[in-house]
Amino acid sequence: MKHTICCMVENKFGVLARISGLFSSRGFNIDSLAVGETEDPTVSRLTMVTGADEKILEQVIKQLRKLIDVIKVVDLTEIDSVERELALVKVNTADAAAKSEIMQIAEIFRAKVVDVAPKTLMMEITGDAKKVQTLLDLLRPFGIKELARTGKIAMQRR
Amino acid sequence: MKHTICCMVENKFGVLARISGLFSSRGFNIDSLAVGETEDPTVSRLTMVTGADEKILEQVIKQLRKLIDVIKVVDLTEIDSVERELALVKVNTADAAAKSEIMQIAEIFRAKVVDVAPKTLMMEITGDAKKVQTLLDLLRPFGIKELARTGKIAMQRR
Repeated sequence: MKHTICCMVENKFGVLARISGLFSSRGFNIDSLAVGETEDPTVSRLTMVTGADEKILEQVIKQLRKLIDVIKVVDLTEIDSVERELALVKVNTADAAAKSEIMQIAEIFRAKVVDVAPKTLMMEITGDAKKVQTLLDLLRPFGIKELARTGKIAMQRR
Repeated sequence: MKHTICCMVENKFGVLARISGLFSSRGFNIDSLAVGETEDPTVSRLTMVTGADEKILEQVIKQLRKLIDVIKVVDLTEIDSVERELALVKVNTADAAAKSEIMQIAEIFRAKVVDVAPKTLMMEITGDAKKVQTLLDLLRPFGIKELARTGKIAMQRR
């Protein structure tokens, strides 16, 4: 089962290195990671998705909480929250017939075409992981030239 | 000047720790970081934004390229590319008059309201850093309760 962990940390150099070191020393990988600024310029917000084993994850969360630069750690997996990610996808449109089909798919998913080149088209998609994945599955047969995903961010509903 | 660095890396544990270690050992911070999967499950794509000094950055990029798990490093700063980020913002709507004003601001920015609670409203915004920042500046007077930003992703136009 995938877990979504949200961490508030001091915005200092070295913090990310310590956190990722803590993860890697346990031998488990992070599927996605998003680190951005918050309203407080001294604090950054990290959102991690990991498929780590429940028990190991529990230990890692405990250790995260002990780090001096970690302000707060929340496992959002079981909490009712809004989850979103953003992706930029460059699709092959060398075939003109394919192009109109790709535009239709984009419309259905409310993906926004952000750049057009002679043989490719770039679109932007926002949604939960499932929506992004479904769009990618539909675009794959045409040829995905390039893909950039932000990784998930999540926020508790209240 | 802010630099946007895009890295393709092996999707293995430890890679992120090595990269962030390399940055922190030079004493400079990453403003934002987005790590996501690519079409190749063995490869992850990292997008970093850093305000580091030109010369130090050049050294770090050279060292990144030497890391065995780093496949490719591109400085997108001077390259014509599409840049996007995603943010979730929870705004205070305790005041009913403020609420309709907030909804209007959301509409102008094409921000999507994704959750409504008695005293707060959560919206999702996608755009370049400037657009996100402008929206946040407009929402700040009402009270931003919570903010999650993915960090920037970028892709070369072609």
